[in-house]
Amino acid sequence: MANEPTRIMLGVNESTIKGYPHPSISSRKAFEWTLQKIVRSNTSGFKLQFLHVQVPDEDGFDDMDSVYASPEDFKNLKNRDRARGLHLLEFFVDRCHAIGVACEAWIKRGDAKEVICREVKRVQPDLLVVGCRGLGPFQRVFVGTVSEFCVKHAECPVITIKRSAEETPQDPVDD
Amino acid sequence: MANEPTRIMLGVNESTIKGYPHPSISSRKAFEWTLQKIVRSNTSGFKLQFLHVQVPDEDGFDDMDSVYASPEDFKNLKNRDRARGLHLLEFFVDRCHAIGVACEAWIKRGDAKEVICREVKRVQPDLLVVGCRGLGPFQRVFVGTVSEFCVKHAECPVITIKRSAEETPQDPVDD
Repeated sequence: MANEPTRIMLGVNESTIKGYPHPSISSRKAFEWTLQKIVRSNTSGFKLQFLHVQVPDEDGFDDMDSVYASPEDFKNLKNRDRARGLHLLEFFVDRCHAIGVACEAWIKRGDAKEVICREVKRVQPDLLVVGCRGLGPFQRVFVGTVSEFCVKHAECPVITIKRSAEETPQDPVDD
Repeated sequence: MANEPTRIMLGVNESTIKGYPHPSISSRKAFEWTLQKIVRSNTSGFKLQFLHVQVPDEDGFDDMDSVYASPEDFKNLKNRDRARGLHLLEFFVDRCHAIGVACEAWIKRGDAKEVICREVKRVQPDLLVVGCRGLGPFQRVFVGTVSEFCVKHAECPVITIKRSAEETPQDPVDD
């Protein structure tokens, strides 16, 4: 059996619920599931690769009250996004470090589903794990455009981990 | 971390290429991938559950030259199907036994995609692995109705393992 670890890429994103940059429920769920069900005690057998895709804030909702008066302002905006992304990745890297699982993490900008598939092509992981909102208790429409796209187009096996009903916030569109 | 092994259900079927009941290319691929990339050296951490769904032979193609003259003939037919299914499962159980991975295997009859989802509901594995034909070198249509259905409807995470191009037989509809 080969000695290189199994490389598992995880697409992770921020929660939509609060402004504070903590991982979404479905990202955390996908991560915990991977550790419990796949990695288990075999910490040297796996390497986790965390990819966070930042979506350019097209409608500028978060920045409604901001005033852009100079190129410097835009630079500050980019730095702020970068800091949020780093903070998010730190959560996952810290956990891996604590339990002794090798990992790496990086940030890309663009459309999440397309960037994830492009990064799979480039990095060639053995497996891609993506979380998705799944079905909330009062919801009939499946919320998983990113995961559905990746299952179809990513050039490696893909596992979709759905949030469970009890992990779903009051408004199932939140994550 | 829990001590119970991670239970991985694998849907396995016969090859369509020859009459002899050996596993399909995609079933074997899904099995080998699971051992190499997930189980690895942690043989006590996993239990494999092989489900073979026999599709009732509606058009009777295999039995074109058979003559059914008594109830006994139908019983013989059922016994023959059963023997083929057992032979198929024996392949996987033997391999698991040889490398020391716990397993169990069983046969059900019916529509593969529906039976697999029903068995997931009943057995509640941690993960379902299904092979699929994927894209052949000269083929544009995705051949994976069972896997696509399971990804959407099975009540557990699902991995679809595609055959690679070099494993695809001349006629990509074969498996």
